[in-house]
Amino acid sequence: MIQIDVKMKIAVLGTGMVGNAIGTKLIETGHQVMMGSRTPDNIKALEWTQSCGLNASQGTFADAAAFGEIIFNCTKGESTIEALRLAGEKHLAGKILVDLANALDFSKGMPPSLLICNTDSLGETIQREFPGAKVVKTLNTMNCQVMVNPGLVNGEHDIFVCGNDSDVKTVVKNILTDFGWRNIIDLGDISASRATEQLLPVWIRLMGTLGTPVFNFHVAR
Amino acid sequence: MIQIDVKMKIAVLGTGMVGNAIGTKLIETGHQVMMGSRTPDNIKALEWTQSCGLNASQGTFADAAAFGEIIFNCTKGESTIEALRLAGEKHLAGKILVDLANALDFSKGMPPSLLICNTDSLGETIQREFPGAKVVKTLNTMNCQVMVNPGLVNGEHDIFVCGNDSDVKTVVKNILTDFGWRNIIDLGDISASRATEQLLPVWIRLMGTLGTPVFNFHVAR
Repeated sequence: MIQIDVKMKIAVLGTGMVGNAIGTKLIETGHQVMMGSRTPDNIKALEWTQSCGLNASQGTFADAAAFGEIIFNCTKGESTIEALRLAGEKHLAGKILVDLANALDFSKGMPPSLLICNTDSLGETIQREFPGAKVVKTLNTMNCQVMVNPGLVNGEHDIFVCGNDSDVKTVVKNILTDFGWRNIIDLGDISASRATEQLLPVWIRLMGTLGTPVFNFHVAR
Repeated sequence: MIQIDVKMKIAVLGTGMVGNAIGTKLIETGHQVMMGSRTPDNIKALEWTQSCGLNASQGTFADAAAFGEIIFNCTKGESTIEALRLAGEKHLAGKILVDLANALDFSKGMPPSLLICNTDSLGETIQREFPGAKVVKTLNTMNCQVMVNPGLVNGEHDIFVCGNDSDVKTVVKNILTDFGWRNIIDLGDISASRATEQLLPVWIRLMGTLGTPVFNFHVAR
């Protein structure tokens, strides 16, 4: 059983829009957060710490992973495995690794295709490459504004979670609840990453059709 | 501009649950329907005609495709191209071909993966193989009970349409409206088939999680 402290130490890997949004929300919901990047003096990470106050710090991927009891992978899916190798297998072992990424392939033009799909997924690849980590795939099916502020989207809408360890998923679901999520659908083991990562193509098409990234999927019953 | 008659002649290719549901609904909404199969005396097609009355008939794939002004592909995606070849390119040319199929691969166990995906799709393959046909992909993202009775699912929920010809999509949208669909999302050209066909993996997972096939996707905004 994993203990849930009121304040957890959390690593956020990635300094882009997703890392920034998630890191800020984790600070707002009472956690200590270290943002990790390739270098110890990333300008975006430094700016983020300055805007977030005393509970925010920054360092390398390895620094952050060593710091965190939970690690949020907010790197681009295309470079996630490399980033996690830099974070270090020993710093991931035994920890909760929340994977938000989608591995997109822009080499064939727009819209992007997926680098891994159908009979495999990024979530499964991470779990396979870092078997000591407890991987939970979630938050990968909506824009980062919606991730941390579900109320931006009207009406009922849902977030998907999958992973191999039920206790670990409970910890992650509690964080999602703190983020404002009300409808959390647990799709089972980490192989369900195939299913949620394959929502990206329709998400990208919908963004073009609707003219906004502020929308989300709902499973009506 | 394609003329919309009050009663159209429509071919339904396939005698399974999907063909049966679609054929019956098309009869109920005032059309003449010929159900097509591999043989001229398919027992399921004969039973269907007997239950549906004078506007229902049956024959080979080629008979049905020759009869129909619009052709609904309700065959299994795995054998769709072969079925359409039996229907005959000359009988598809210039006609609206509504593709409902998903090409699933059960050879690697459950849940199935997709036979075509990511950088291609069944919808695009059909359009490429039968360039004279006007392919519209729709109705492939829900169970056949929901296809013909959207009211089975509570609240707002959506159906996706894509295809290269706007006038043709208007004809198909009118049929969907007759089926009871209120929220029709047009995702653009036929390449959006990649997006909607890749909803199948999450659909299959959801069916397992929810314990029912009676649900549907809604894009909350």
